[in-house]
Amino acid sequence: VIVRVKSSEDSSHVQRALVALGLWVERFEDDSQVSFLVAAHSSAVEEAAVRAIPGVESVARRPSLHPRIDAQSSPIDIAGISLGPGAPPVLMAGPCAVESEAQIDELAQRIARYGARFLRGGAYKPRTSPYSFQGHGEPALGWLRRAADRHGLKVVTEVLEPGDAPRVAEAADLVQIGSRNMQNFALLKAVAHERKPVMVKRGVAATIEEWLLAGEYCLFHGAPAVVFCERGVRGFDPSTRNLLDLGAVALLGQVQKRPVVVDPSHACGRRDLVVPLGRAALAAGASGLLIETHLDPGRALSDGSQALAPELLDQFLDP
Amino acid sequence: VIVRVKSSEDSSHVQRALVALGLWVERFEDDSQVSFLVAAHSSAVEEAAVRAIPGVESVARRPSLHPRIDAQSSPIDIAGISLGPGAPPVLMAGPCAVESEAQIDELAQRIARYGARFLRGGAYKPRTSPYSFQGHGEPALGWLRRAADRHGLKVVTEVLEPGDAPRVAEAADLVQIGSRNMQNFALLKAVAHERKPVMVKRGVAATIEEWLLAGEYCLFHGAPAVVFCERGVRGFDPSTRNLLDLGAVALLGQVQKRPVVVDPSHACGRRDLVVPLGRAALAAGASGLLIETHLDPGRALSDGSQALAPELLDQFLDP
Amino acid sequence: VIVRVKSSEDSSHVQRALVALGLWVERFEDDSQVSFLVAAHSSAVEEAAVRAIPGVESVARRPSLHPRIDAQSSPIDIAGISLGPGAPPVLMAGPCAVESEAQIDELAQRIARYGARFLRGGAYKPRTSPYSFQGHGEPALGWLRRAADRHGLKVVTEVLEPGDAPRVAEAADLVQIGSRNMQNFALLKAVAHERKPVMVKRGVAATIEEWLLAGEYCLFHGAPAVVFCERGVRGFDPSTRNLLDLGAVALLGQVQKRPVVVDPSHACGRRDLVVPLGRAALAAGASGLLIETHLDPGRALSDGSQALAPELLDQFLDP
Amino acid sequence: VIVRVKSSEDSSHVQRALVALGLWVERFEDDSQVSFLVAAHSSAVEEAAVRAIPGVESVARRPSLHPRIDAQSSPIDIAGISLGPGAPPVLMAGPCAVESEAQIDELAQRIARYGARFLRGGAYKPRTSPYSFQGHGEPALGWLRRAADRHGLKVVTEVLEPGDAPRVAEAADLVQIGSRNMQNFALLKAVAHERKPVMVKRGVAATIEEWLLAGEYCLFHGAPAVVFCERGVRGFDPSTRNLLDLGAVALLGQVQKRPVVVDPSHACGRRDLVVPLGRAALAAGASGLLIETHLDPGRALSDGSQALAPELLDQFLDP
Repeated sequence: VIVRVKSSEDSSHVQRALVALGLWVERFEDDSQVSFLVAAHSSAVEEAAVRAIPGVESVARRPSLHPRIDAQSSPIDIAGISLGPGAPPVLMAGPCAVESEAQIDELAQRIARYGARFLRGGAYKPRTSPYSFQGHGEPALGWLRRAADRHGLKVVTEVLEPGDAPRVAEAADLVQIGSRNMQNFALLKAVAHERKPVMVKRGVAATIEEWLLAGEYCLFHGAPAVVFCERGVRGFDPSTRNLLDLGAVALLGQVQKRPVVVDPSHACGRRDLVVPLGRAALAAGASGLLIETHLDPGRALSDGSQALAPELLDQFLDP
Repeated sequence: VIVRVKSSEDSSHVQRALVALGLWVERFEDDSQVSFLVAAHSSAVEEAAVRAIPGVESVARRPSLHPRIDAQSSPIDIAGISLGPGAPPVLMAGPCAVESEAQIDELAQRIARYGARFLRGGAYKPRTSPYSFQGHGEPALGWLRRAADRHGLKVVTEVLEPGDAPRVAEAADLVQIGSRNMQNFALLKAVAHERKPVMVKRGVAATIEEWLLAGEYCLFHGAPAVVFCERGVRGFDPSTRNLLDLGAVALLGQVQKRPVVVDPSHACGRRDLVVPLGRAALAAGASGLLIETHLDPGRALSDGSQALAPELLDQFLDP
Repeated sequence: VIVRVKSSEDSSHVQRALVALGLWVERFEDDSQVSFLVAAHSSAVEEAAVRAIPGVESVARRPSLHPRIDAQSSPIDIAGISLGPGAPPVLMAGPCAVESEAQIDELAQRIARYGARFLRGGAYKPRTSPYSFQGHGEPALGWLRRAADRHGLKVVTEVLEPGDAPRVAEAADLVQIGSRNMQNFALLKAVAHERKPVMVKRGVAATIEEWLLAGEYCLFHGAPAVVFCERGVRGFDPSTRNLLDLGAVALLGQVQKRPVVVDPSHACGRRDLVVPLGRAALAAGASGLLIETHLDPGRALSDGSQALAPELLDQFLDP
Repeated sequence: VIVRVKSSEDSSHVQRALVALGLWVERFEDDSQVSFLVAAHSSAVEEAAVRAIPGVESVARRPSLHPRIDAQSSPIDIAGISLGPGAPPVLMAGPCAVESEAQIDELAQRIARYGARFLRGGAYKPRTSPYSFQGHGEPALGWLRRAADRHGLKVVTEVLEPGDAPRVAEAADLVQIGSRNMQNFALLKAVAHERKPVMVKRGVAATIEEWLLAGEYCLFHGAPAVVFCERGVRGFDPSTRNLLDLGAVALLGQVQKRPVVVDPSHACGRRDLVVPLGRAALAAGASGLLIETHLDPGRALSDGSQALAPELLDQFLDP
């Protein structure tokens, strides 16, 4: 926002009023007038409050680049479950990869007992190395669906390529776009065409604006609803795998009232931090959590080191 | 930690057991044997649990570089107030800069009413520009001390140069080393010589190990106790001023049981995020919060845009 | 690499010898022996030199995760042009987006005159916003091909989705994987199947290892050769759009002898820095440059602000 | 810069003209008018060129925060040596720490033979751990001075605390402020009072503006001249210790014509990258290089792993 001041005598008064509202401003001067540029890291305030400051001549705005995301109301509905500010927090749990029909069925039963509403698990796995296990693919979609149905859960699972979008969307209630694909626009478009709600994980170095624009792609191309998922950004400290950005979560969840869930498992990579960071995420304004769980982490085909036993799910909602 | 395996036939069994404990491992091979290097972002586990795995030949450790910090027990005592895991959370509040005796006295009265135990405020201000207000200096130390005493509070305030250490330490109960001075070793040494507890704010791009080592400097040179303060690391998103690293807080507070407080005001720079991030910090394992408050933020001599009204302090401890 | 020392009396001698070789080491101790872990930011040295140090008992290595990339020799051949250490530097130039047949033809003529060997230009454009120009698509591929052929150039252009891989590979001599798709494994696989050389741009926060592994995906699935392209990583300073990582370029180009080109246009986003950074890239060890050029930047459909006039291409190769 | 357009019909024309100049702009609208905010990562252009665009009503600027740094002309003089744009590049070399009088004398002789003009070496060492070697202190200042004088070199060395400023400034021709102390304002002030030229190393996560402001502190408090030194910012890739920001160097050196030297030794930490990165730095616009050299790196008291043999200095200036 750029606030233009009527006459330069008003400028210090206007500046004080802007700061009092919680805005950070930088002063610009042209030959005759003063303007204040409001920095992005300012509190969200009503434009009317700025216009009402005596001495303000005009308030110029940048049009939002994501009108559909802005217009999405909260909570959203995903197969009958409400998610977002205004609804109670939702637990999503399950293994990194779907490993067998028996595994996923038993896990579904266990996580349901501890309050989870969504079963997660990868049928298609994006793996950094071509030599790693890449997921069981299509059969795993069926295992997931049946396990979820048997235990009263919904399904969230990731899609990796446009050609798989129809079958993933058929099996899932919520289709996940992974962090590495946040700006895979061909995939966003293909998924959106399936008309299922989409969960967009934040890219490892994506700005909040880029993240919201990925959601805008989904709504623009036909998705009925979008959930955002924070999973940590690239940090520099080796003690945690990523740097969980709960400031972004508070901004989306508390200030902008958007549905945002947090994946503390990937965020830190440490089993001993999943519970405190999950609880912190809810306190910050997350509308749900995505938790990796496994019955026998030592034998997990991927990411066992960060998986929790299902019993620990009861630590999140009732602190 | 490096885990050496007796014979290579044991290696897959040992690897599973390490993952089951929550460790991330990389496999190394020499001519005859397999070793696993445990990554830093692994769960903290007892060395005995690793040694007990059948097939493990030896477990090699890196000696800790900060034995005094490791040996500090929690909670610590600061002028009669307990801070750290094992003690209730502590609120520290006050203005960015001490602006006048009247200001600080009224603020002290108000924050005390809302549960704060420490009065904060800068007598000496580290400012990015030489043309900005640099603090009222020595007189402000007296104003702070008297205001705190009158209202039953303790004082935490920042020191900027070795020559000021004696007078700051005399006025303060807890001496703050600011983020920009975390590796100003001459200052750490001078402050430590004063024998007062020290609060070390994390540098804007400091690793956790560097942060703990700054604390080690303080204990090594005579400080009786060290508190750590997370205030956000350098991020890349313009919507928040810094990126609050609650993973580091959970690691220090929950896993390592060290006293760590969080400054959500500097972390995000946005008044509308201070409350949710402060509550998230406590959920993550912080032992206290440092909150900027001001009676008239528009007239603050620095950082008014992020200051809260004192009344909002009651949002943190009783959610 | 983990270096195990015969007896602890040898350890200080071995440590000095390792440092003399340019290695950074951390000391680990188990009950009876000392090992040194060599940090990743150490100079590349022959394993034999380490084994030859008196007192060394064994040297353990992590197997490389990208054997095919390691085995690729340099320079590689792309439609008759040699690229990589051992060959002269190669200029690739052209507009951000292919805007019309006339535009691309005239640009091809101009850049050829200034020494470029490859014509670049996007037929499919990955755009942060769904409302931005997304490229002219298939027709633009034909325009590119014909312009290049008429002026003796080769074609490098980006592919965005697996379904387009055949037609892009038919039109291009070198198929570009954009930064946002570096870990779009479905796309890497689809492109590799076309059996054309692939240029993999580094993701905005990708580690070097992740980048090399993206190349490994290509070779594993059938690509005949892989070129890497550095285009800047996410930084924190607003004065440049990204942070060009010439340390990574020197490592790949000079130490590891891999073909790596640099895109200084995207790296900095500033027209006034493209020439100095392009020349610095060649000095660091880049085997080529990718330069955005436009005849009328004010009318460019994307990124005109960073495009150079074709005449400036003569600044790069003849300093 | 904010560019206000006379009437909204002019806006697309003005926008094209701004892009043609190499500016990145964002469009703002108030009730009746359009303004363009020019992003910081735009090419530097003369304000007159913007004012001359038909349809532009006014151009508003932010006053510079560092007028003294802006007014410093280049090259500057340091004890008779010219440094900065307009002067030939200057080599500064020597050990991380001054270890003995004999060591520094022999090194001085060797580096002088290979074209160095400044002898560097730490008498006071800022060390991450209190248990590491902290430098020989005052005696080492004398060794440095005498060695430099004997071999026709100038001295650059670091100061760590305000109380040492007089004696360091007496021994040195150029006083170094280390990366960790870039915002140690008490130190900047104390050094400036000594009236010697100052070299300000960039903090590990400092923005360019913060760096220039550190220089402004020096000039404001009396330093006769300021040189900037880039030594790498905090990165995320373990293969290099820091991320050398040659974009910042090109900006300062080529666009803004300020004296900036580069320390490739600390930037990468790898002996095998020092030469290519040093040469790249000069190509980018650096006015000098700071190179760690040692006669017997295995026995260096600090940072031997990155030190070059003095003979390698001839690789930088005559590529």
